[in-house]
Amino acid sequence: MAEKILINEVGLRDGLQMQPKFVPADGKLELANALIDAGLRSFEASSFVSPKAVPQMADAADVFAGLPDRDDIDYWALVPNERGYDRAIEAGVRNVALVLSVTDTMNQENIRMSVEESAIMFERVLKRCAQDGIKSRAYVAVAFVCPFEGITPVDTVVRWTDRMLSAGAEDISVADTIGAGTPTQCKDLISTLVGKWGADKFCLHLHDTRAMAATLAWVAAEEGIRKFDASIGGLGGCPFAPGAAGNAATEDLAFMFESSGYETGIDISGLRKAVGVAERLTGLTLGGRITKWWLSQEAKQAQAAQ
Amino acid sequence: MAEKILINEVGLRDGLQMQPKFVPADGKLELANALIDAGLRSFEASSFVSPKAVPQMADAADVFAGLPDRDDIDYWALVPNERGYDRAIEAGVRNVALVLSVTDTMNQENIRMSVEESAIMFERVLKRCAQDGIKSRAYVAVAFVCPFEGITPVDTVVRWTDRMLSAGAEDISVADTIGAGTPTQCKDLISTLVGKWGADKFCLHLHDTRAMAATLAWVAAEEGIRKFDASIGGLGGCPFAPGAAGNAATEDLAFMFESSGYETGIDISGLRKAVGVAERLTGLTLGGRITKWWLSQEAKQAQAAQ
Repeated sequence: MAEKILINEVGLRDGLQMQPKFVPADGKLELANALIDAGLRSFEASSFVSPKAVPQMADAADVFAGLPDRDDIDYWALVPNERGYDRAIEAGVRNVALVLSVTDTMNQENIRMSVEESAIMFERVLKRCAQDGIKSRAYVAVAFVCPFEGITPVDTVVRWTDRMLSAGAEDISVADTIGAGTPTQCKDLISTLVGKWGADKFCLHLHDTRAMAATLAWVAAEEGIRKFDASIGGLGGCPFAPGAAGNAATEDLAFMFESSGYETGIDISGLRKAVGVAERLTGLTLGGRITKWWLSQEAKQAQAAQ
Repeated sequence: MAEKILINEVGLRDGLQMQPKFVPADGKLELANALIDAGLRSFEASSFVSPKAVPQMADAADVFAGLPDRDDIDYWALVPNERGYDRAIEAGVRNVALVLSVTDTMNQENIRMSVEESAIMFERVLKRCAQDGIKSRAYVAVAFVCPFEGITPVDTVVRWTDRMLSAGAEDISVADTIGAGTPTQCKDLISTLVGKWGADKFCLHLHDTRAMAATLAWVAAEEGIRKFDASIGGLGGCPFAPGAAGNAATEDLAFMFESSGYETGIDISGLRKAVGVAERLTGLTLGGRITKWWLSQEAKQAQAAQ
């Protein structure tokens, strides 16, 4: 029997959050439904951050209210603090994700707190998750490279992973936040983490900035990782910075793993449709690295139909 | 000390051979020199095939006459048969590559011979290489997937590899001719070959049709492979088939391996210039998967300079 890979779709949150064109809740739900049709069963659906800081996520509660109520789908919400947690619970969220950037400079830039201060705050949130029966995940962000501090030592990632798991996080999303990791580094880091806590405790969150996301995903799968964050069409990144790449594309990871004998439960042609929805909603040209392959297949089919 | 990776540039042959715009010999030499400036030290520079069948390669002798005469650079010529071998030797070629497609349907489509008939002919050529002190390489083509016969069994690749090595080929370029291999298949195939003959005997020739070339290269490197064919800017494929992808891009493999701690001897920014030369000569928009990264870095530098 084929081994399963779970792709957690983060397009609705990490993909959309920095996009300048506001996508209203019904658009976000249309995209979610297209992705559900394609077989996605895990979503980071929104984040309960400050609407002033991230206007695109201001309708988090509306999104959660409108998502299909299905037992076979997990919807995650990012919460930045206890206030966000309150809002998320009020909106009916059952799965909560926290982002701990593991270098002080990055965490200060991001939320004006040291890593230690954030960790203490998240320990409180994780305690409430346990009390409320809420599933929890912690991102260990800038786990490969920090834009301010350079390469992140493996020990640093180990330390904060330990801290978040000890505080009750059910798993850890190891994030190559700026897409600067290399396959060598990925193997070293992931094998260390898996050696300490087992592969089930980890998800890998990649950005494709340097075009190595798929390779890193493969390397991690070889180390036993079976959960990956990805974003439809590679949506993400900052549209104002030319060439700044987005998340690992859902279709790239799904295609690679499916064609390599893993089961993702995803229908690749359904993803093609979802990319179209995402393009219409954002006004962007999207599509992962397999887009050229898709286009060539469609051209062949069109020719055959003539 | 870092391990070395050798990238054999095939843009001048596999990259150019199907391009509709004829690039004259001086253009080809300009591209070769740009690539030499970037640190490339191994080239498949042309092929001595029928000028009627492949007009782009009609000037093979002129190209070989014009290449810089340097002891530290290997120039390879593809030869299809003994007549091609004669022409190559006459042109001063010292390194000869042969292409054996390992499925009968593909070999028949390509050169109207069975694999066995081709092998017998190449045995004669390899014997002459040995007599003449010429270095020889055999491609084992469609080693992953044949467009007519589907997945190529590992045993088939093993059998023809054995045949070519026994006949005196110094190494084997294992070719994913249509870019349909998966990382799983690559690992199985390469580990089998390396187990039998050692990694030094093999080069991996990838096409990026399904956007997995870099991942396959990485998987092969993990199995010990240190020689890769690649084409500047991903040049290659058939320009008439929309979306048909070219070879693995030299810059993608060089960037991945360099950033992962291998030594390629290649200056990545020099490759950027060589892509520009290739674009000008072919009239194509080229560039590997790291192009977006390059553009973003250049935009940052331009901004900083203002």
